[in-house]
Amino acid sequence: VLTINRQVSVACCQLAPQLGRTSANRAAALAAIRAAAGAGAQIVVLPELATSGYVFADRAEAWELSETCAGPTVGEWAALAAELDLVIVGGLCERDGDRLFNTAVVIDTEGLRGVYRKAHLWDGEGLIFAMGAEPPLVLDTVYGRLGVMVCYDVEFPEWVRLAALDGAELLCLPTNWPRESRPASERPAEVVRIQAAASSNRMFIAACDRAGRERGVDWVNGTAIVGPDGYPLAGPEGREEPHTLIAHCDLARARDKRVSAHNDVLGDRRPELYGRLAE
Amino acid sequence: VLTINRQVSVACCQLAPQLGRTSANRAAALAAIRAAAGAGAQIVVLPELATSGYVFADRAEAWELSETCAGPTVGEWAALAAELDLVIVGGLCERDGDRLFNTAVVIDTEGLRGVYRKAHLWDGEGLIFAMGAEPPLVLDTVYGRLGVMVCYDVEFPEWVRLAALDGAELLCLPTNWPRESRPASERPAEVVRIQAAASSNRMFIAACDRAGRERGVDWVNGTAIVGPDGYPLAGPEGREEPHTLIAHCDLARARDKRVSAHNDVLGDRRPELYGRLAE
Repeated sequence: VLTINRQVSVACCQLAPQLGRTSANRAAALAAIRAAAGAGAQIVVLPELATSGYVFADRAEAWELSETCAGPTVGEWAALAAELDLVIVGGLCERDGDRLFNTAVVIDTEGLRGVYRKAHLWDGEGLIFAMGAEPPLVLDTVYGRLGVMVCYDVEFPEWVRLAALDGAELLCLPTNWPRESRPASERPAEVVRIQAAASSNRMFIAACDRAGRERGVDWVNGTAIVGPDGYPLAGPEGREEPHTLIAHCDLARARDKRVSAHNDVLGDRRPELYGRLAE
Repeated sequence: VLTINRQVSVACCQLAPQLGRTSANRAAALAAIRAAAGAGAQIVVLPELATSGYVFADRAEAWELSETCAGPTVGEWAALAAELDLVIVGGLCERDGDRLFNTAVVIDTEGLRGVYRKAHLWDGEGLIFAMGAEPPLVLDTVYGRLGVMVCYDVEFPEWVRLAALDGAELLCLPTNWPRESRPASERPAEVVRIQAAASSNRMFIAACDRAGRERGVDWVNGTAIVGPDGYPLAGPEGREEPHTLIAHCDLARARDKRVSAHNDVLGDRRPELYGRLAE
């Protein structure tokens, strides 16, 4: 797919999934996607585990709420992407054989384009999900070259760099960020880290968090879209309710890695000195 | 050296070197170090190129302002470290044979303990300095295990991670951050990146910037000391003048890489998937 259009309208739909209410969650996602498209969005990013909820009691519960990539979530998103000419990136609880994955899918007018399985699992997720074994997903769409990873993956600067080295212009990050205490005047560290990740790699990042207290867990509500200079283009609003952010992104800016007359954030790397990172 | 004392008082002395006035710059550094020690500092971090200035017209000018690690800067800092029981980390324009390096030294009561040469050169520095060819310096001192790199080095998450993998508890960063435009309400991206670097690696970072407009270049004045959760302990004040920040750091916190009951920011890495970073 050739990347022709460089100006793109990116939406993050912060949803509030309710654990186990998969039909209602799917309907809420469809409504949010449709509204975002109505507001001009071309790429729509949804949270991690957008249709199942997150705080599973155990693996059996997650299993009950899982589906395959031939299931209703992907089917409905594909129908809407085709109808509204969208690229949709969102998370679901994926079943494959007898394994479960914390998965993000990329869907466009052609249907399911890519499947990414979270490779760095958070907290109790290791008791439920198998770990992904593939690098960050990076693929071309009509609107630009997208990178995809899920939540805790982005805390590993190595992982973000791999996506940048593979040419990702916009990193799409479905996430569920559990809220932790922080100084009152400070922006959440989760958002600070995506700002840094964007600027260190001179790319856009669209991080779509969730809302809705679930089994005692609150969320950062940190949905934000950040530009390649590391400053937010939209969000974080910290609003503890569903809402959609839209930012206009000139993805051509993410092709330009220069930061001075003599510097390039990828070209200045010293990979011959980085060997220990892979040991 | 055994690391016994885990509570340590860390100072950053933001200086305003004047290009070419090496004697005056050395005197200003000594006065600031002495004042910091008087305020209780045990580790004192100084800016990059603290005694020469930064905006050299050409290599010949830098050569004139360079000195070896047996020169007056290291000698004076060593005398003061011995007198006041300090660890000092600061930058100088180092001459070695016919080469120049943008160097940071670590000095304690024993004298010169380590030399680090900047490995990622900024803008015109490549016309003046040879590139360092060694990983970040990490070494034990009586006050804790320190990592050292210089300015643009820290923009490479790979480089920070190498220091963390080598056990650095406090990353000392002499820097000269040229000021760039940013949204008025935003913290400088340079500071955001050290916040992220600290929290991604669960270590302290003491970044000592400079002040003093030099040949048309202004500086971020972004001196800050950040804790392992990524939030500032002191600074950034953005004050366009020399000033000293002091923070009390419990370096034992940097030994604890856990971020949930099941997670550890170093232990959760997937180095078997990171090979491309070293290619």
